[in-house]
Amino acid sequence: MYRKEIKVLDCTVRDGGLMNKWQFSKDFVKTIYNSCVEAGVDYMEIGYISSEDQFPRPEYGPWKFCAEDELREIVGENNTNTKLSVMADIGRIKFDDIRPKDESVVDLFRVACYDYQIDKAIELAHHVMDKGYEATINLMAVSKVNNRALDQVLEDVAQSRVGTFYLVDSFGSLYSEDIHQLMEKYTSMLPGKTIGFHGHNNTQLAFANTIECIRCGANMLDATMLGIGRGAGNCPMELLLSFLKNPKYNILPILKAIQEQVKPLQEKIDWGYFIPYMITGAQNDHPRSAMAWMNSDKKDDYVAYYESVVKNKEV
Amino acid sequence: MYRKEIKVLDCTVRDGGLMNKWQFSKDFVKTIYNSCVEAGVDYMEIGYISSEDQFPRPEYGPWKFCAEDELREIVGENNTNTKLSVMADIGRIKFDDIRPKDESVVDLFRVACYDYQIDKAIELAHHVMDKGYEATINLMAVSKVNNRALDQVLEDVAQSRVGTFYLVDSFGSLYSEDIHQLMEKYTSMLPGKTIGFHGHNNTQLAFANTIECIRCGANMLDATMLGIGRGAGNCPMELLLSFLKNPKYNILPILKAIQEQVKPLQEKIDWGYFIPYMITGAQNDHPRSAMAWMNSDKKDDYVAYYESVVKNKEV
Repeated sequence: MYRKEIKVLDCTVRDGGLMNKWQFSKDFVKTIYNSCVEAGVDYMEIGYISSEDQFPRPEYGPWKFCAEDELREIVGENNTNTKLSVMADIGRIKFDDIRPKDESVVDLFRVACYDYQIDKAIELAHHVMDKGYEATINLMAVSKVNNRALDQVLEDVAQSRVGTFYLVDSFGSLYSEDIHQLMEKYTSMLPGKTIGFHGHNNTQLAFANTIECIRCGANMLDATMLGIGRGAGNCPMELLLSFLKNPKYNILPILKAIQEQVKPLQEKIDWGYFIPYMITGAQNDHPRSAMAWMNSDKKDDYVAYYESVVKNKEV
Repeated sequence: MYRKEIKVLDCTVRDGGLMNKWQFSKDFVKTIYNSCVEAGVDYMEIGYISSEDQFPRPEYGPWKFCAEDELREIVGENNTNTKLSVMADIGRIKFDDIRPKDESVVDLFRVACYDYQIDKAIELAHHVMDKGYEATINLMAVSKVNNRALDQVLEDVAQSRVGTFYLVDSFGSLYSEDIHQLMEKYTSMLPGKTIGFHGHNNTQLAFANTIECIRCGANMLDATMLGIGRGAGNCPMELLLSFLKNPKYNILPILKAIQEQVKPLQEKIDWGYFIPYMITGAQNDHPRSAMAWMNSDKKDDYVAYYESVVKNKEV
């Protein structure tokens, strides 16, 4: 599959940090950055951007804040072909804390929001665009949004100046038929805009769904090395680059970073395919109860977990 | 997804045995069998059927032979709704060693073959059908078969009395576009026959490809518990049953068997998503070099493995 418009975004540090409160070593982040640059990855998302009063340091590592001086310790002036991205949650970053683009190495703000926050998301996206950045809006948990509410979101986005809108499978619960239906809706209601995709791997479909989105016209694709990410993780970068077969991408630096930093980390953090994550995915549930179960001494008791999930549904 | 014609076949012991020479404890096999029965799985494939002089006992465990007395130790008379399947490799079972159906608890013979063996596969399938069994033919490694050779295989199968023919992704190298093209070919050239699918998970697409095959009309689907199988493994049974949403299937006994037997085994045997298996899948190669690498002391040196694979292609 080759299409020149396709851009790949690495969110290894940003999404992976959901598993360790962004407590990565500088070596880790530097290795991921260098490998993105060498591999030809278009964007690297290095963390969440948050105002300092929103979360306690040092409980949360630097990539929950993305302070400019800490970014520069990793990327310098970032004179590379890999653009730098940060994710912003609604309400976590004060507008006044965002520098003008010419004072920052950040290129892209991705605004994550729920459907009922779309007005605030558009406001923030317009604000950062006015300061000189690129912006996307990433609508989370679309598998729980009803059709009328989704229409309203898409109508608002269509009228905005925001050029890229993301289909996000937050719970890893979408099957290919869902992908086709949503992509059809997104592309038809957002003419002229770029559609992105961010998958989760609860039912081992993050890569497959990414492929289906490509087929349906998505041109901005998220992936992480060895699939690191919240719970079951994300679409693995090494699979995506192999599939894309674009000469500008090079898989070897990705394999090297996995070998040196990501695989060793997997011995300490349980992301990937585990039965509790699979159960929440198949049930279209938030993974929080599975993550709590995986952190308990009952993590291997799948029967008890399944029964607790089913019981909680019988209300 | 519900379609009453769909049948599910568990090959946990048969394909998983490729990783440990079928050295499963009786408890393990009994647990898998009981859970298939309780879960409503249509067929359980308990191993390969081989003549005793083909492989040395006890290097190979009982499920490489499927002797009638050893089968009965697990399943008794198998008075259940789960049929018993064995796989036969060409040349490994003498016709005279196959009992008439009324002397065996086996219901189904699946004949595995390469394209150049199709005449022998049809002969064996007809032989077992004449002895009273059901039969399928499973054409392996189709990703390496050229179009003219595949036409010839399908023409031969079309003229045979064999009712079920399998699309087999032996190397875990097929993408959904391959699946669609092959399923179109299989269904159009084999009118009236059932098409089956057996996937491998090298690029995390075994479940996704199974779904695509279902959409294209496949009605016999292979899966294994926790995806156990050669190298990267197979389509996970727990995902497939969740997707099918057929009231006759029950996922809880599968989760119980995974918890009691399959997950603990995963601590001893490395099946699943590992970079060397991903590399052979993405390259459409047999996994044997990856399996050898995974058994060496260089198993975590992905860069060296990738370079050795690429080098071997430059001939």
